[in-house]
Amino acid sequence: MSARLFSFVAGDSGAWRIVELRAIVGATLAPAARLEVVNAPLEHAVQAWVLRGVTSNERYVRHDERRQLVDRQPVLGRAQATCATLIPIRKSDAWWGLSQDERRRIFEERSRHIETGMRYLPAVARRLHHCRDLGTPEPFDFLTWFEYAPADVGNFDRLLRELRDSEEWAFVEREVEIRLAR
Amino acid sequence: MSARLFSFVAGDSGAWRIVELRAIVGATLAPAARLEVVNAPLEHAVQAWVLRGVTSNERYVRHDERRQLVDRQPVLGRAQATCATLIPIRKSDAWWGLSQDERRRIFEERSRHIETGMRYLPAVARRLHHCRDLGTPEPFDFLTWFEYAPADVGNFDRLLRELRDSEEWAFVEREVEIRLAR
Repeated sequence: MSARLFSFVAGDSGAWRIVELRAIVGATLAPAARLEVVNAPLEHAVQAWVLRGVTSNERYVRHDERRQLVDRQPVLGRAQATCATLIPIRKSDAWWGLSQDERRRIFEERSRHIETGMRYLPAVARRLHHCRDLGTPEPFDFLTWFEYAPADVGNFDRLLRELRDSEEWAFVEREVEIRLAR
Repeated sequence: MSARLFSFVAGDSGAWRIVELRAIVGATLAPAARLEVVNAPLEHAVQAWVLRGVTSNERYVRHDERRQLVDRQPVLGRAQATCATLIPIRKSDAWWGLSQDERRRIFEERSRHIETGMRYLPAVARRLHHCRDLGTPEPFDFLTWFEYAPADVGNFDRLLRELRDSEEWAFVEREVEIRLAR
């Protein structure tokens, strides 16, 4: 496996307790008690479900935006960040059929995806995983993992609302929200 | 497997005869007699090597460029296109560490990758496969497959020379050229 591959394994064991699992758009995922994030070959025999994705190069971020992100984005695993949310998303064929400049225009110039996320830094740490080009049929295109302190739940809720109200989200055809605690 | 996954299987059998296989930059691949292009689960037991990649959304092409490409690019499998070339490429960490706008600037504004390819349409048909995000350790980032008629070999050679002379190619740390005939 690639060192950039992460598996999100839901079942009866794992460091994270699944507090809530609900579909936002489209079909939901099976309920489960716990979730483990695995960055190694999978040895879990029985589980409710496994989602896989790779971290990769940035697809839309510009040089100036990246400088700001690097300055402000926190690492994962902070002691106080005992809340996490996993959000698997699938976008429509209409999205993937757009050219790069059309996707960037919707993503940032019109939907302010990067700018919105930036306003919640350093409260909300985030890691994006890509599933679309794994070479296997995957139910989602992206898995985004967020970590934050209990005091920032309200901020995190606002971040999700702002993104879901954007033009970009019209291209989301499946989205599940999995709230976790450790 | 994803419907977008293609395997390039080199060994003793296959529709394409390997005419020449040589390293342009970095390590070469093992020699083999023939190559098969497979868009189905692999059943080949013994082979010299297998390279895999997925077709995907465009990463740099703009709307106006795409319109021109769609108008001019030929399909694969034309009867007269009895020559093919497979070019696996790996780019450096320095390339992947650049932001999207920096990569686009080098790729097109300074290296004219799209414009150069366009000048050889419709003579040279092309399909790009991505390997970097397959989730398995892959020796290359891209596999490009080209098809053309014997009369266009000189044009194809010129296309490769022009691309290899570009600033973008300074980021190529491994490249193999596999010439084929059927």
